[in-house]
Amino acid sequence: LADGENMHILRAESPGPIVSKLVPRMRKTAGILYLIYLTMTMLEIIALLISGLPTFDAVCMSLGTAGTGGFGLVVDSAASYTALQQVIITIFMVLFGVNFSFFYLILMKKSSDAFKIEEVRWYFAIFGIASILITLDLTHNASELLHNLNLATFQVASVMTTTGYATADFNLWPTFSKNILVMLMFVGACAGSTGGGIKVSRFIIYIKSSIREVSHLIHPRSVKVVKMDDKAVSDETIRTTHMYLIVYMFIFAASLFLLSLDKHDMVTNFTAIAATLNNIGPGLEVVGPMGGYGGFSVLSKLVMIFDMLIGRLEIFPLLILFAPRVWKHR
Amino acid sequence: LADGENMHILRAESPGPIVSKLVPRMRKTAGILYLIYLTMTMLEIIALLISGLPTFDAVCMSLGTAGTGGFGLVVDSAASYTALQQVIITIFMVLFGVNFSFFYLILMKKSSDAFKIEEVRWYFAIFGIASILITLDLTHNASELLHNLNLATFQVASVMTTTGYATADFNLWPTFSKNILVMLMFVGACAGSTGGGIKVSRFIIYIKSSIREVSHLIHPRSVKVVKMDDKAVSDETIRTTHMYLIVYMFIFAASLFLLSLDKHDMVTNFTAIAATLNNIGPGLEVVGPMGGYGGFSVLSKLVMIFDMLIGRLEIFPLLILFAPRVWKHR
Repeated sequence: LADGENMHILRAESPGPIVSKLVPRMRKTAGILYLIYLTMTMLEIIALLISGLPTFDAVCMSLGTAGTGGFGLVVDSAASYTALQQVIITIFMVLFGVNFSFFYLILMKKSSDAFKIEEVRWYFAIFGIASILITLDLTHNASELLHNLNLATFQVASVMTTTGYATADFNLWPTFSKNILVMLMFVGACAGSTGGGIKVSRFIIYIKSSIREVSHLIHPRSVKVVKMDDKAVSDETIRTTHMYLIVYMFIFAASLFLLSLDKHDMVTNFTAIAATLNNIGPGLEVVGPMGGYGGFSVLSKLVMIFDMLIGRLEIFPLLILFAPRVWKHR
Repeated sequence: LADGENMHILRAESPGPIVSKLVPRMRKTAGILYLIYLTMTMLEIIALLISGLPTFDAVCMSLGTAGTGGFGLVVDSAASYTALQQVIITIFMVLFGVNFSFFYLILMKKSSDAFKIEEVRWYFAIFGIASILITLDLTHNASELLHNLNLATFQVASVMTTTGYATADFNLWPTFSKNILVMLMFVGACAGSTGGGIKVSRFIIYIKSSIREVSHLIHPRSVKVVKMDDKAVSDETIRTTHMYLIVYMFIFAASLFLLSLDKHDMVTNFTAIAATLNNIGPGLEVVGPMGGYGGFSVLSKLVMIFDMLIGRLEIFPLLILFAPRVWKHR
């Protein structure tokens, strides 16, 4: 494969607004990434085997974590596994949601640089804060604390990295916890990981450009640059990142509109789109972790198939296919 | 008042991305607008009086329509009025949601120009399509058709213009109809009307810039300009319009997060924020047209007070107040 083609494959497999080459030669970058991916998968399999999980379960659950696919082997997903096994899966879900540049820097013995990546810091911060808030929301007496921490970290990791495993029917959780999980469905994982969603790095750009806008209104003559990792983000990148969200919202609204022709409740419809467009798996109510998508009409299923594809491919590549001009110019 | 100050007042009272002066002298523009506003209010009062509504009701309902405030006099809002009275209110709600430039052009005997205003065309199209879809969704046999058309047009007009009157408890309507109404809460009325919401003109810009983005990806060298009413929309306007939506979403998400500390269901929380940030009034479930906001905690009420203010003032003016720099520089 030519260098350019490798870059396309890398972009498709680890989507996000900013995928930078790790080393000048693209082929080498791809090689390093696959090595990291393979090593981490092997480490999870070994850890799960040591924890006593049967080989088949260990391999399948690890592959489901690595690809943030989230296909459990049993009906209750990962609820019947031991706490230790759940913690191992939580850790690896979180790791597979991290920008792979992070691991590359650690491999290059530049750990301090790795932890300076802004997206990674925000990612861990969001994971930590969401887990703590949900743990507190679930806990009514101190003895449940550790158990709830395990439940909360697992579900937060699963939803945020768009894996989709479950150890609890979070559909039965209080509104505050459910709300946090639904919001995390949209945030998603880091760009340049296997996770889906809108991506943490895009949200950083949204927040920073919002702050710039307000500051620009106060001091109209000031020129403030949006920075990520101490580098200026180009106006072009900011523009396309904004466009991404706007097109995303139109697809979301159109999908919701079509899905509501089915007679499901509003929460089911909303989270079904959130869970498919962000490639998570479970939503709430009918499509909750212990529910399923079987009850939807053929039209709704087609809409959600489209959403899963367009979400996974970061919208624009698939949208181009539908532009009449692409077909005319053949 | 100086010309500049008049422009500020006009912008505050008829918010939206594009408020153009009708005539060179701002004071004259404002005068014309107030005249249109006053005439239309009087026309509604007279029409309601002729239809047999008591004077007090006619005046109050007309003022509630004109300002898209929507304070009904009786508990059931406008449900107990006759069909004719409801139709009159529907018509005036729709008219008060139209960009006032439209009426100015009609006043100047340029009706054909008036109907060429893109925002006005989209506004009427959205109103028409939404009303038809909801009518069909509600109707099970032909005899109910006219009655349901009256219900649907009234509710669509009320929600889209952010007035907030009701003639039916649309909380009990099927999901499809409720979904359309919730989406219309965000769309809102025309810029340069008394209505709230994100505004039709902003959505036109979102749609057109989305199409441009896809077309730019197919033909990277093409330079396509976003046009409104045959005039090019500047990149600066597009940028600030995009920023508006992004900041709007952050405020929405933060409000939803805080509101979910109350123990209400997710639909109540979501539509309570939608109904306050877009200045509508009723939402769904607990805050449905026959419900109320009394059951929320003090924190939730403060959040919604903030949302009502920031939504009415189009976000940025109020946000600036919270920027630390504004206070430091005194």
